[in-house]
Order: sequence, then C-alpha cells, then structure tokens
Amino acid sequence: MEFLKNLEWRYATKQFDPTKQLTIVQLEHILQAVNLAPSSYGLQPFRVIVVDNKELRNKLKQAAWGQAQVTDASHLIVFAAHRNLTNYDVDKFLDRIAQVTGVSQQSLTEYGNGIKGKVNNFSKEERFIWASKQCYIALGFLLAACANMHIDACPMEGFEAAKFDDILNLKEKELSSVVMATVGYRAVEDKYRHQPKVRKNPEELVIRL
Amino acid sequence: MEFLKNLEWRYATKQFDPTKQLTIVQLEHILQAVNLAPSSYGLQPFRVIVVDNKELRNKLKQAAWGQAQVTDASHLIVFAAHRNLTNYDVDKFLDRIAQVTGVSQQSLTEYGNGIKGKVNNFSKEERFIWASKQCYIALGFLLAACANMHIDACPMEGFEAAKFDDILNLKEKELSSVVMATVGYRAVEDKYRHQPKVRKNPEELVIRL
Repeated sequence: MEFLKNLEWRYATKQFDPTKQLTIVQLEHILQAVNLAPSSYGLQPFRVIVVDNKELRNKLKQAAWGQAQVTDASHLIVFAAHRNLTNYDVDKFLDRIAQVTGVSQQSLTEYGNGIKGKVNNFSKEERFIWASKQCYIALGFLLAACANMHIDACPMEGFEAAKFDDILNLKEKELSSVVMATVGYRAVEDKYRHQPKVRKNPEELVIRL
Repeated sequence: MEFLKNLEWRYATKQFDPTKQLTIVQLEHILQAVNLAPSSYGLQPFRVIVVDNKELRNKLKQAAWGQAQVTDASHLIVFAAHRNLTNYDVDKFLDRIAQVTGVSQQSLTEYGNGIKGKVNNFSKEERFIWASKQCYIALGFLLAACANMHIDACPMEGFEAAKFDDILNLKEKELSSVVMATVGYRAVEDKYRHQPKVRKNPEELVIRL
C-alpha cells in the first residue's frame, strides 16, 4: 500500500536543507490535514502557530536546546493547547455547528450542556492534559500528510514550553505550547536519512484477545 | 489531494454494520501504520490491544456507557500506555536498535543513559501522561490509514479506564488503557454519515507569526 510506503519513507529529520522551502499550497495542504483531525467532541481545543519570522525562530531555537531544525526547516509549526477551556469556548463551538450544519442553536442546548458538564468536571490541570492529547492526534495527521506528499518533518517535544509561551505571546491567549513539528526537506548530509527505521516487533506491540 | 479527500470522507462512525468485517490483510495494514507512528525517542511506550473475543467486547461495552460501536464494529483496538516505563524498557529498546541497525550495544550506552535520565526525571504520573500522549500520535496514524483505505473508524475516549484495565488484564502488565478506536464499515442507517464535517475556520485555528 502506497500510504504505508510513505510512512516507511518518513523519519524524524534532524538536518534540513535551509535553501528548500515549501510552497504556499503545500503548507495549506498540511494545515488542512491538521484541521481535519478529529478531537474530543470536535472541540479542537488548541491552536496551531506557523512561525515564519526569523527573529522569533532564533529565539525559539535558544529555548529548544539549540536544535538546528527550528531555524533550518522551511516552516515551524507549534501546537498550543487551551489552558482553560470554558463554557464560552463550547458556545463558540455550538455556534459553529449551527453555522455549518444549518440546525438551530436551540436544538443544540442539551448537547452543549452535556459537553459543558464534562469539561467543567475536569480540574484545570486535567483539562489542559486532555486538550494537549488532542494536539497529538493533529500532529499525527500532520506527519501522515507530510509523508504522503514526501515532505520531511520532525516532531519535537524537546523544548522549554514556558519560554515558548513567552516568545509567542501565548499566555494572554490562555494557550500553552505542547509539541511542535518542523517541516521542509532533508539535507543531503543528514546521516539519519539512511538509518533503518527501528520499530517494535509486531508481537511486542500488539496483544490479541 | 486524494489524501485530504479521504480525511474529509472519514467521520466518527457511530453506527457500524455488524455484518461487515475487515479482512486480515486490512487489519494488518492498520496495525502496520500504528507501528510506524513516531514516538518520544522512538520508545513506543504503549501496546495495542485488538479485541476480537465477543464476551470481552460485551463486558467492555458495559464499561463504555453501552456505546454500540464497541460490539458492532468489525474490530476494537485499545491503546494502553505503560504506567511506569523503567530502565529495563529502555534497555530493551536499545537492544532493538542494535538488532535492526547492526550497531554495537556498547556504542548506544551514552544515548541510552540520556534517555534514562529523561525518563527517570518524570514522576510516575508525568511518565504515564507522556506515554499516553504517544498513543494519540499512533491513533492519528490509525485514523489516517483507515481513511486512506475507506475503512470507517471511531476514536473513543468515553470509557471507564479502570474497568477496561480489569477486563483486559492490563494491570499485571503495568499498562493502562488510554484511548480506543472501533474500525469497520458504517451502517446505511447511521445518520451521522450525511452530516457536514464541522471544523474551525482556518483563521480560528492557525496563528501566523
């Protein structure tokens, strides 16, 4: 299957070719895939920050242990989860459902109350962890979309989230950075491009009951 | 792009046709996609439980608020994260790297110590949350793979994890269930199959800096 071959082709690219840029259309395809990722209740409790500004990227690199991908890749995409999703956000989501599907807002009241009950039941910390997890599904979609277009990507958790939040002004938006991906094209000299992919033996991964 | 069309095509299937089963080959493709998902350091700190047994699935349904997908879908796939990943697991991972890439185990000692330092730095709870997040990337790959094969799927967080762990005997393996997906084919009468997909306006999702 072509898709599996593409997933085999991808790897966490450590060295990008800084001269090769994605086209606007490619970037939009990636962001569309991210937007199509499912999330708990469909709430999409996160935002996606595409960082183009060189100065910002230099600062972010310092807050990511100097990893070269942050500045050398074509684009840097940070996933930031809501720190404190509230009823206001759920109401905005219900408005969006009404807008897209054409149902009345009134008909969604009960459904909305169910979601609010669930979300309010979380502690603030639990709510952030729950929102963070949704970012990872979207990250999965980003990586799969990139692989499918033979665009290189590196998922990265290794950065100082608090510093990222400062640099990207996320606190005032009640967001916090969770995970990121650099996207672009592998450098010819990236030694990892030739390494065989290491994954579990299927029988070490899968339990059949 | 065909891939985006496939992601548009998918939806969280609420009603499956219980008479339609995946083939063994289709199931293996899905599991291969899951195994190809990247994870923190490549550790894959989780297992994937494919539940076929009808009795178990009936019990799991009770622990998932009676949601019909749990028994009606062709297959049920539970992602269970390690509760307490230890140096032993890191050593097993290093063995696997040596086996697949052919490098000596000795040459991996420093690399392994770096990973152990990182993992041991987590509290037990943080380690489980970190492992759980990796499940969500793999879930993203599962959903993308299914969409690409026009196989229906429903990602599900709504279940009682402690009961799932009991039913699936996960505690003794130091695992805990995190999220699951039911896979198969949508029922003709699933009313959600005709609903337009609700997603954020791109400008509500993406921040450009």
